[in-house]
Amino acid sequence: MLNLDFHPSGRHFLQIPGPSPVPDRILRAMSLPTIDHRGPEFGALGREILGKIQQIFKTQNPVIIYPASGTGAWEAALSNTLSPGDRVLMFETGHFASLWHKMAQRLQLEPEFLGLPGYEGWRHGVQADMIEARLKKDTAHEIKAVCVVHNETSTGVTSDIAAVRRAIDAVDHPALLLVDTISGLASADYRHDEWGVDVTISGSQKGLMLPPGISFNAVSDKAIEASCHNRMPKSFWAWDEILEANKNGYWPYTPSTNLLYGLNESLDMLLEEGLDNVLARHQRWAAGVRTAVEAWGLEIQCQDPTVYSPVLTGVVVPEGVDADEIRKIIYERFDLSLGMGLGKAKGKMFRIGHLGDCNDLTLIATLGGCEAGMKLAGVELKESGVCAALEYFANHPLKRAR
Amino acid sequence: MLNLDFHPSGRHFLQIPGPSPVPDRILRAMSLPTIDHRGPEFGALGREILGKIQQIFKTQNPVIIYPASGTGAWEAALSNTLSPGDRVLMFETGHFASLWHKMAQRLQLEPEFLGLPGYEGWRHGVQADMIEARLKKDTAHEIKAVCVVHNETSTGVTSDIAAVRRAIDAVDHPALLLVDTISGLASADYRHDEWGVDVTISGSQKGLMLPPGISFNAVSDKAIEASCHNRMPKSFWAWDEILEANKNGYWPYTPSTNLLYGLNESLDMLLEEGLDNVLARHQRWAAGVRTAVEAWGLEIQCQDPTVYSPVLTGVVVPEGVDADEIRKIIYERFDLSLGMGLGKAKGKMFRIGHLGDCNDLTLIATLGGCEAGMKLAGVELKESGVCAALEYFANHPLKRAR
Amino acid sequence: MLNLDFHPSGRHFLQIPGPSPVPDRILRAMSLPTIDHRGPEFGALGREILGKIQQIFKTQNPVIIYPASGTGAWEAALSNTLSPGDRVLMFETGHFASLWHKMAQRLQLEPEFLGLPGYEGWRHGVQADMIEARLKKDTAHEIKAVCVVHNETSTGVTSDIAAVRRAIDAVDHPALLLVDTISGLASADYRHDEWGVDVTISGSQKGLMLPPGISFNAVSDKAIEASCHNRMPKSFWAWDEILEANKNGYWPYTPSTNLLYGLNESLDMLLEEGLDNVLARHQRWAAGVRTAVEAWGLEIQCQDPTVYSPVLTGVVVPEGVDADEIRKIIYERFDLSLGMGLGKAKGKMFRIGHLGDCNDLTLIATLGGCEAGMKLAGVELKESGVCAALEYFANHPLKRAR
Amino acid sequence: MLNLDFHPSGRHFLQIPGPSPVPDRILRAMSLPTIDHRGPEFGALGREILGKIQQIFKTQNPVIIYPASGTGAWEAALSNTLSPGDRVLMFETGHFASLWHKMAQRLQLEPEFLGLPGYEGWRHGVQADMIEARLKKDTAHEIKAVCVVHNETSTGVTSDIAAVRRAIDAVDHPALLLVDTISGLASADYRHDEWGVDVTISGSQKGLMLPPGISFNAVSDKAIEASCHNRMPKSFWAWDEILEANKNGYWPYTPSTNLLYGLNESLDMLLEEGLDNVLARHQRWAAGVRTAVEAWGLEIQCQDPTVYSPVLTGVVVPEGVDADEIRKIIYERFDLSLGMGLGKAKGKMFRIGHLGDCNDLTLIATLGGCEAGMKLAGVELKESGVCAALEYFANHPLKRAR
Repeated sequence: MLNLDFHPSGRHFLQIPGPSPVPDRILRAMSLPTIDHRGPEFGALGREILGKIQQIFKTQNPVIIYPASGTGAWEAALSNTLSPGDRVLMFETGHFASLWHKMAQRLQLEPEFLGLPGYEGWRHGVQADMIEARLKKDTAHEIKAVCVVHNETSTGVTSDIAAVRRAIDAVDHPALLLVDTISGLASADYRHDEWGVDVTISGSQKGLMLPPGISFNAVSDKAIEASCHNRMPKSFWAWDEILEANKNGYWPYTPSTNLLYGLNESLDMLLEEGLDNVLARHQRWAAGVRTAVEAWGLEIQCQDPTVYSPVLTGVVVPEGVDADEIRKIIYERFDLSLGMGLGKAKGKMFRIGHLGDCNDLTLIATLGGCEAGMKLAGVELKESGVCAALEYFANHPLKRAR
Repeated sequence: MLNLDFHPSGRHFLQIPGPSPVPDRILRAMSLPTIDHRGPEFGALGREILGKIQQIFKTQNPVIIYPASGTGAWEAALSNTLSPGDRVLMFETGHFASLWHKMAQRLQLEPEFLGLPGYEGWRHGVQADMIEARLKKDTAHEIKAVCVVHNETSTGVTSDIAAVRRAIDAVDHPALLLVDTISGLASADYRHDEWGVDVTISGSQKGLMLPPGISFNAVSDKAIEASCHNRMPKSFWAWDEILEANKNGYWPYTPSTNLLYGLNESLDMLLEEGLDNVLARHQRWAAGVRTAVEAWGLEIQCQDPTVYSPVLTGVVVPEGVDADEIRKIIYERFDLSLGMGLGKAKGKMFRIGHLGDCNDLTLIATLGGCEAGMKLAGVELKESGVCAALEYFANHPLKRAR
Repeated sequence: MLNLDFHPSGRHFLQIPGPSPVPDRILRAMSLPTIDHRGPEFGALGREILGKIQQIFKTQNPVIIYPASGTGAWEAALSNTLSPGDRVLMFETGHFASLWHKMAQRLQLEPEFLGLPGYEGWRHGVQADMIEARLKKDTAHEIKAVCVVHNETSTGVTSDIAAVRRAIDAVDHPALLLVDTISGLASADYRHDEWGVDVTISGSQKGLMLPPGISFNAVSDKAIEASCHNRMPKSFWAWDEILEANKNGYWPYTPSTNLLYGLNESLDMLLEEGLDNVLARHQRWAAGVRTAVEAWGLEIQCQDPTVYSPVLTGVVVPEGVDADEIRKIIYERFDLSLGMGLGKAKGKMFRIGHLGDCNDLTLIATLGGCEAGMKLAGVELKESGVCAALEYFANHPLKRAR
Repeated sequence: MLNLDFHPSGRHFLQIPGPSPVPDRILRAMSLPTIDHRGPEFGALGREILGKIQQIFKTQNPVIIYPASGTGAWEAALSNTLSPGDRVLMFETGHFASLWHKMAQRLQLEPEFLGLPGYEGWRHGVQADMIEARLKKDTAHEIKAVCVVHNETSTGVTSDIAAVRRAIDAVDHPALLLVDTISGLASADYRHDEWGVDVTISGSQKGLMLPPGISFNAVSDKAIEASCHNRMPKSFWAWDEILEANKNGYWPYTPSTNLLYGLNESLDMLLEEGLDNVLARHQRWAAGVRTAVEAWGLEIQCQDPTVYSPVLTGVVVPEGVDADEIRKIIYERFDLSLGMGLGKAKGKMFRIGHLGDCNDLTLIATLGGCEAGMKLAGVELKESGVCAALEYFANHPLKRAR
């Protein structure tokens, strides 16, 4: 029988950019007894959650909750709004933007993949001006949707979505704006309504601090309108039946009851703390971690300080060193999991997650593991990043909005 | 803040035919810390689970595990093997067969819905001879798949799948055989390989005793072959990338880690007990419950004793009585949840689940609640069903295969 | 490695008169992280609990909480108020009264053990008139304390404590009144102040629904006064340092933090429901169970209906049958634990616990197991007790005080 | 209702020298359903635990387990072996030695409190030569027991118990040797049999990683012999009935079932890892932490390097600074609990626990919190202790005995 309790003494440090560590409070909620998903208590639970989740997306519109992991919500966004053969404009910001592009192809859409040349796109955010230029040329309005990733988990870049909206509006283009903020929600500032997003895609296992397994589509009226006419075969992902059943707090098919218990608890935690406080907490952590990377004399993957991610930081290792080798040493010696370089970034960098159920000392521990592990791997570091971050945290106490 | 711990003194009796009560042992496994789904331990976990799950489906072939609830696995079966416009033959055995039929329509298939006339189909199993007759006429082999429900959760009928296979073979028809055993797996006898099923669909929240949230496709070589050529747009549900990643115990996108912990524990529990013992346990419970229904002088929904379900029993209430009113009384007075009559059966019957984490006394309690509740609702009962079932259980000790 | 998860399918029915099943809500509270017992949060927790626990004992006076199981609280009551050589009057109501008597001897007290002749004392409650008569003779006031058991767990008799108080007062005797309500608290009516009890002893694993491990002394001013002068060597049990530290919510030595989390949750549950509702719930259950015993044509251990226990019922088995043999059959066939006959009652009876985290159907299941098990053991039963109890519960809905 | 889930984002760092953080694996074991403490499974559990616990004390003799916290086990050791008026020799090593001395007085013993002058005793271990000198003078053998603390939790000194044994033997004195290793067991080397200890006292909430609530007496034959004749009133603590019941794995009164589940899991964890590996792990952590204190330029409370504790390190703060003020800042800013200076050490030092469920990075985080907090409090530090410890841990990989 497989031993699932394999970790050595003490807690494993899971500092990948998601799944993030699940707070015990949420684990306890998830262990509540499964109830009849057609019974009266379930309806009350459903209505409660559907109300609270809107506050996290900053929307007055419905948020669809799927009993499926985040990749499913990507598919849901595409299959509810588009038809086979439709042209969509996507922007390469990293590995996840690339995967979404691949999905669009598999769904028989005609995606066009904009991006900065070479590896540059993986070190910067979405370039709204490039989108504007491309849409301007599309006078026939063949492009039905613009798809961008808000917080690119593979690089640590949080793109400016409001700028993308302005770019679309600047040329009066009717394309829908679909945004993936799977790893950004509840950690990075996000405003579905204010930014005019048509479909926002998110998942449970990042800022919401849940295990993976449920995912989201926040939708605009325009998106719902599109879903009434599009021709992509769809059933499980179809919004119409879910929206109908959600009116009473139910789902048309069996929902993930225990994950919904966890979601309800997560929403209570976030709203009790205040979403703005949550966001400020992540910004402060990110600043502390970047202070460490700078002290080490290493490069941050994101080269544009205006779009540094508050959720994760990509650390570029010196040429000639394999970042995965460093990660392996850190894992084996310090029981610390870091994110690997994905796709084009493989071996070139590692990713430190600073999201969810963390605190200053968790991050000090994490930076300590990174620092010691890099030294053991022979990386020359300028100064102690742990000390720099410690000083940063000490000198920048967290301010609370209430 | 919503109180999710709302049940009064003692444990709620959740005797619907799924979601079934989750054993504490599984809840504890699910509370293990979420790990990196790209790390080494995850691969070990994945390989372990993928090996053990085959034993439950009785297959040597791969079993796909989706981080999505059971309805998704229906869609996966259809979207991997069929193309828009394909004709499929489905058989109406009840509400879930009807929902699957509706899904096929939404996915732009051309389903033909066979069935016994009127309400008869809801009280009997799949009629293999009708399928054979229909396929015989399809000399052009326009029908690409036969879709049947093994254990119809809405009625308590467990159809004879081997007979359907024989029917297809009798006329040498190349149609794929797709079978839904969402509520049958690990409670009713099921043999993917022996019965020549091409895609078996199942879910987590029934005999596997997990919360809802993951689902399955067991596949034949012929089904995989079909998936290489079919033209339904598919990405999330696509088998190819999952099968590839599964070779090392991983998934192409974020899996439901904590539910997989639970699944691993569930598989250990089932295999420790021995799957045949598990099935015998359910058969014995079902017999005890039917003994009670007979003592009450009420009809069982399933009118063919050869296909009585070992998982649930539909109890037909006398005309003039609203079954949902009885259920409400039972729920409020005895904190017992029973399954409602769905679709055409609404108000005519209620369903007693006898699956998963139960025992004789749980069922005695359940039958006690039914008996008292029906009396309170004014139903005349012939004799005490509780006493009859108690005697049945006492006189029929469980035999163990080892 | 020992498998602690050894129970077969479904939940074990633990229907002994304590330890009682622990509600999941309490288990979840107990899994909160252990905190510094000298830190600020601990003090807040301590003050909260010490306030709420008084309501359960119905006292305005302090309640001492020991990080030790119930037997320790017996010793605490004696060692804080009495001195070696002191004469105490105890009353034999069953096994636990006998054990307490034995403890008094070991502590070098001079206990006098009153009681009805032979086995009669084990089938009736405390006879206040016998106590009064004995005290009347003690004109020198050599007797320093009267010790009685409120709810005798070994027999199912709940003695009239107010009558004992009246007996003491009737002869103006200064003896302290020490009462054990380990199994009575929060299930049977109990009034520390109103009944003039000097020390009330209780434990966690019965009506409070906690695991065993903490215990209580509710004390009167007179008892505290006695504790300032008595000469029994005492330190761990000494009230003085605990009372002093409790003023701020702390304890002089390490308290059972996690059990205190559970106690806090238990108190919330009891006070939310309303203590009077809790007591009425137990009375109703007891009446239902006795209805079953009467239907079976068996004797109840307690022969005085005015002192039937609301917590447990002793069922006398016919002569020639070994009650432990019946219990063994029931345990092995139905996974149901019942209380054994203790001491003088060994083999003559078994005990059904109906306390704490139960409900009507739990008890129907329990009675079902008893009925079937007795039949399997060859006991002739007059009528079905399960049916009788079911009818009782159906016809006597629970009334709520609010 | 009190919110017990009050900690801010992330896990609280509980780095006091006990209660230590409870591993999730133990919390899960503790949540198993409470069973009948007179049933067959309980006996199997009891026998398993009683066998395994001997290995932790390194004894072939019985180990008594009390359902009471550690202070109770002190009283048990005294009350089983001594009689009122007996003279005992105790040695002042710190706050806990002083509390035990006070308890001896309350139990009407005649303790004599040896020690180094002034505050010196609080910065060194037991001086075996002083004990030898005192016993030599006791030619009448009036001293019945020598009582010493092995790991003094208030100072971070682990005394040499073998030396005390040699001192007693050197003068052929018949006094019993009673040793408190409440905070030393399973973290510091301890050998009940080899060192000739007569009663070893320990508790659950330190190296055993359980919540507080159970405690231990490991006993020698000579101690058991003494318990048959001593005249201290005793019942709850009496060894005789417990030893008798333990033969079958039971206890004479209700044991702390759920804590015993946790203990069983703890023993499995320790024995799986290998006790010597566990001890080496603690020694290495202690060395790393001391490296940090030295880098800071601060004094360690223990002034004798041969008796540095592997369990905790006392850090002396510069004169003029209030250690409790520093602790408060650290607690509020970094959610880290440290041990306060107790008794004579109040305000002069703080204590860092490095025991149980920790790892290198937990301690790096802890040292980070200390470093930043001291700076915020105005303490001048020579160098970074975090960096020093990090280097120590990196350069001293843990060696495993197997």
